[in-house]
Amino acid sequence: MSSDKKIRVVLIGGSGYAGYEVIRWLERHPQAEIIGVYGPEHELGPMDEFYPLLNKQVNLVQELFEPGKLAALGGDVAMLCVPHKVAMSYAPALREAGLRIIDWSADYRISDQALYEKWYVPHTDPEGLATAVYGLPEYYADKIANAPLVANPGCYPTCTVIGAAPLIKAGLIEPDIISNAVTGISGAGRTPNLKFHFPERNENFEPYGVDGHRHMPEMEQVLTDVTGKATQVLFIPHLAPMDRGMLCSIYATPIGDVTAEQLLDVYQAAYADKPFVRVRETILPATKYVSGTNFCDVAVRVQKGKVIIFSALDNLLKGASGQAIQNMNIMFGLPEDMGLY
Amino acid sequence: MSSDKKIRVVLIGGSGYAGYEVIRWLERHPQAEIIGVYGPEHELGPMDEFYPLLNKQVNLVQELFEPGKLAALGGDVAMLCVPHKVAMSYAPALREAGLRIIDWSADYRISDQALYEKWYVPHTDPEGLATAVYGLPEYYADKIANAPLVANPGCYPTCTVIGAAPLIKAGLIEPDIISNAVTGISGAGRTPNLKFHFPERNENFEPYGVDGHRHMPEMEQVLTDVTGKATQVLFIPHLAPMDRGMLCSIYATPIGDVTAEQLLDVYQAAYADKPFVRVRETILPATKYVSGTNFCDVAVRVQKGKVIIFSALDNLLKGASGQAIQNMNIMFGLPEDMGLY
Amino acid sequence: MSSDKKIRVVLIGGSGYAGYEVIRWLERHPQAEIIGVYGPEHELGPMDEFYPLLNKQVNLVQELFEPGKLAALGGDVAMLCVPHKVAMSYAPALREAGLRIIDWSADYRISDQALYEKWYVPHTDPEGLATAVYGLPEYYADKIANAPLVANPGCYPTCTVIGAAPLIKAGLIEPDIISNAVTGISGAGRTPNLKFHFPERNENFEPYGVDGHRHMPEMEQVLTDVTGKATQVLFIPHLAPMDRGMLCSIYATPIGDVTAEQLLDVYQAAYADKPFVRVRETILPATKYVSGTNFCDVAVRVQKGKVIIFSALDNLLKGASGQAIQNMNIMFGLPEDMGLY
Amino acid sequence: MSSDKKIRVVLIGGSGYAGYEVIRWLERHPQAEIIGVYGPEHELGPMDEFYPLLNKQVNLVQELFEPGKLAALGGDVAMLCVPHKVAMSYAPALREAGLRIIDWSADYRISDQALYEKWYVPHTDPEGLATAVYGLPEYYADKIANAPLVANPGCYPTCTVIGAAPLIKAGLIEPDIISNAVTGISGAGRTPNLKFHFPERNENFEPYGVDGHRHMPEMEQVLTDVTGKATQVLFIPHLAPMDRGMLCSIYATPIGDVTAEQLLDVYQAAYADKPFVRVRETILPATKYVSGTNFCDVAVRVQKGKVIIFSALDNLLKGASGQAIQNMNIMFGLPEDMGLY
Repeated sequence: MSSDKKIRVVLIGGSGYAGYEVIRWLERHPQAEIIGVYGPEHELGPMDEFYPLLNKQVNLVQELFEPGKLAALGGDVAMLCVPHKVAMSYAPALREAGLRIIDWSADYRISDQALYEKWYVPHTDPEGLATAVYGLPEYYADKIANAPLVANPGCYPTCTVIGAAPLIKAGLIEPDIISNAVTGISGAGRTPNLKFHFPERNENFEPYGVDGHRHMPEMEQVLTDVTGKATQVLFIPHLAPMDRGMLCSIYATPIGDVTAEQLLDVYQAAYADKPFVRVRETILPATKYVSGTNFCDVAVRVQKGKVIIFSALDNLLKGASGQAIQNMNIMFGLPEDMGLY
Repeated sequence: MSSDKKIRVVLIGGSGYAGYEVIRWLERHPQAEIIGVYGPEHELGPMDEFYPLLNKQVNLVQELFEPGKLAALGGDVAMLCVPHKVAMSYAPALREAGLRIIDWSADYRISDQALYEKWYVPHTDPEGLATAVYGLPEYYADKIANAPLVANPGCYPTCTVIGAAPLIKAGLIEPDIISNAVTGISGAGRTPNLKFHFPERNENFEPYGVDGHRHMPEMEQVLTDVTGKATQVLFIPHLAPMDRGMLCSIYATPIGDVTAEQLLDVYQAAYADKPFVRVRETILPATKYVSGTNFCDVAVRVQKGKVIIFSALDNLLKGASGQAIQNMNIMFGLPEDMGLY
Repeated sequence: MSSDKKIRVVLIGGSGYAGYEVIRWLERHPQAEIIGVYGPEHELGPMDEFYPLLNKQVNLVQELFEPGKLAALGGDVAMLCVPHKVAMSYAPALREAGLRIIDWSADYRISDQALYEKWYVPHTDPEGLATAVYGLPEYYADKIANAPLVANPGCYPTCTVIGAAPLIKAGLIEPDIISNAVTGISGAGRTPNLKFHFPERNENFEPYGVDGHRHMPEMEQVLTDVTGKATQVLFIPHLAPMDRGMLCSIYATPIGDVTAEQLLDVYQAAYADKPFVRVRETILPATKYVSGTNFCDVAVRVQKGKVIIFSALDNLLKGASGQAIQNMNIMFGLPEDMGLY
Repeated sequence: MSSDKKIRVVLIGGSGYAGYEVIRWLERHPQAEIIGVYGPEHELGPMDEFYPLLNKQVNLVQELFEPGKLAALGGDVAMLCVPHKVAMSYAPALREAGLRIIDWSADYRISDQALYEKWYVPHTDPEGLATAVYGLPEYYADKIANAPLVANPGCYPTCTVIGAAPLIKAGLIEPDIISNAVTGISGAGRTPNLKFHFPERNENFEPYGVDGHRHMPEMEQVLTDVTGKATQVLFIPHLAPMDRGMLCSIYATPIGDVTAEQLLDVYQAAYADKPFVRVRETILPATKYVSGTNFCDVAVRVQKGKVIIFSALDNLLKGASGQAIQNMNIMFGLPEDMGLY
């Protein structure tokens, strides 16, 4: 695109934590601008009333989402930040209005419709699903570039795939891994619930979703696709008493003799030209070292006959908003990292 | 009472944070036992399902509160831990069943019915109100001893009154004070609300209720009553990102020349025989130093022509459950501090 | 012992977080009393200056540790709460003074002297080591009862062994497990360090000690000993932003076909008569549910061909002070759980 | 300056929390670049080893500060981020090297040398002090524009002055105020200390510096200077368990009858053209609403015959790094808010 024309972004559903982040970051983006924010009837109003932090920085008002108005907007891309099921009910109208779509829900992440329906609900937009591209730029940048609809990945799959894919692909670990994952509470969204009530979560560390979390089939699908090996993931998430950040401690069985140095080389080669993956040696990944950034930090160790991979990211950025902007940059031919430092 | 007969406590409303604390502490109490827990229809069941921490420690089940069953229970005292308005609707039946009452709500704290009704709702039990005693043992122990109904004080009034009363009473400060108060989030109760959602409160410090908090008339009434001087309080509460603890920084205007040493003497004399007030000199009150205890710590300074008083307590203990047990001990002729260390 | 004579406890090193807890809990203990607190020259003084929370509750002063004074004290047992290496330099004098010893350091936990010296320092008290008993009451109660010296276990080994031992012993999982462990920061002790500086740890989740933590050989030794199978543990600890609490997520390979129900039965049988182990079914272990208690909560799941065990405890209680008191109770013929609720 | 030449910034002392922030924000600044980072001998090395978060974002190395090297650097301005006393020992050499200076220490904030020396140490650069300008842009922008040395204000004075100055200046409150202030722990710097050890601060709220904090004479000087009325401040700071953020609850006595509406008008007029002050009406200032921004939020209430002002900012940004960049923009003729959203 010409340098004097900015990408015109339509934001659908700006009142969640990730919606808020995407507003903050797009405000700084030199080649994009938000031209409208739309949401459901019970969540309308100035964005700085939802997020007082935005006051005097942005002047956006969330208006009622009405499909009929979309065509006249003249937007280039919709950031579709609504829950699954709602997302696929909005997507066709966005498509018809000529907008490319970056969907943040799970609706277009699982390409096998039957598998999606097993874990979620009946799919109502198979046409959209057929053309959707999984938006993990480190592995799908070429397809993302021309995709009409990009399914922005889940935070846990992003963290686990970036961590485990290089070694599975290289045939250095068995495609059967354990991802012991930890997230901050913003990942649970903004709807109040006893589970996320401050006194229940503060000073508490707790596993959840241990009998099957919906991000599990997603990460298995993507790992299998990008490595070429049918991969199984035992995925156990936990909640830590903090706002943001995610760390996966991934355990795997090596194939043959491997050394940490050898594995490190594989990571360095795999991510040499990826601006948002940092391969760590002595300083291990930690959530604070990626907080407020779009980076995913990875490190690897060999011990006791196992391979251990650490992978950390900010669940609201590389796990949501930052990745969405990274996808947008690629879709519109901009440098992948524009506006993301 | 004879040493071999324990106080038989009926707990009404055990599913809140303070209810939970009173269960834990009464389990340790050598002269009291909980003989039943009762609550509303939507909150019935084993207490260790509400509070997994209680599992294998207590075997209590919250059953439906039915006034007709009370007389047959043979209890000595009811801990009435339900919201205001509900409390005064339950109290008459408890009275008829021969139970003395320790009420944790605001319903019996404000002795002036009109003032109560200005800040809360119409009062439905004026008979109970007429005989209620304000349960701040440091100032009302004599009356508490024989009271049929004790109104367990609010956390903020407890903290502010213990802090300010000695100097107002001694005529050393003007009866017109500022109480800048800070509380942990458990003080807001256990009902989920966006305001108390973890990501809204964590890493956040915020004033609230600045246009008039209901604890203000309560603390003015009590300070006026115990000091004999009509006292006015500008009360500004704040929320700090922590589970428990309360600290009031109280600002006052001295009457005449005062020194910190002189004021310290007043505190030491006022609280010399009070087991749960600790007068501090070099180490200032801090919430962590009273956490998990029934203590209220106080300290005083003179600076820039003002008197500054610091007062700290655990909002769930001296601010609620611990104080209720302290009141119970006094009502039944036991040492005031029994079971409270 | 006769019921009217209390156990006379000598506390060596009371100024750490666990020392503080043991003081608080022994104050409540009906059959024990602290008769003296001793420490190094730079840490002397009233305990309530180290821990303002103890003010008006205990009147203990940490005095200089001088071996010559010990015999005259007439104590029954020493709680030896000093760092490794120092502990074994003090133990002989305590022994000579006729005191039984509960040592909180690592000095007597690893029975194989060469293994100890590989991970720590040269051992200077092999005589003490020869008679030491590992103080995990769920597995060594008989030996603890008569031991002259009990090695109070590390927090991580306690959590991992209670979690994994029943299934290894029953031959239902391979004796080659992964323990992904998470602890609150109090576990790191009270010495200031950039690593534990508030702004470095708050809002941070981080792995550490991944190249070999000293608790690893300890847990391998104990698991091997109590299960009868040579056990290997890949142990990866992490720091979570909270004061206290520990949770181990343990991953194992089942032997043959197993079901969650079958494994649950094994746990219920193994811990039926153990007062401080709670086997959980629907409510998973979480640090908040054991905080401030001496319980260790365990739960088990089968998923994706793996067995997952969750085990949680309070690192300062079941992981340190509470376990020490539990050991003391057993050593002196008292009910195991006396004073521990 | 011409748009194609960036401001060349020399950073002295980049290893503290505020130094880290200034690096992150200057990286985004369209018209400034860091050309060198210098520090003391024991703190040299790549900035991304001090702050792993900076990895792959900046490539800066802290080198030894040697005055002789400065002239050759060709820098425009020095950000002098070292402790007081050290700052004034470095400033003369920076001046001689032709650099303008933004000093973050207290060394040039108090214009009365005797007053400075009463609270700090003997002043060794009276020449620099004579030309220094106090860097609070909302009140000193004109002088800052041409100043050779700008004294970047303390966080507490910034928060208190922005909050209180308009009403004192307008003669609507007495020039004798109480500033009850609360800060996150990053304000204490990065040097480990028991006071700031995680388990000492977490779940703790505590007053400190109550017998006289060094920011008090600074805020009195500035309030007096900008309002034209000799102002006295009773300043009581507290520590809250969070990383960043500051909130001052300021209490004042009105002069004559005032209404909240009237006072609000004064604030709106005072800060109408100040990009980083947000005057709030219904939503009160809270630390989370300014976190990560350069804003200072203010609100005012009238109650019980007193005026209450709330003022909040991010101690690392408007309280340090952000304000320094704001000053730099003004010094070099750029829009005041460039690079600060």
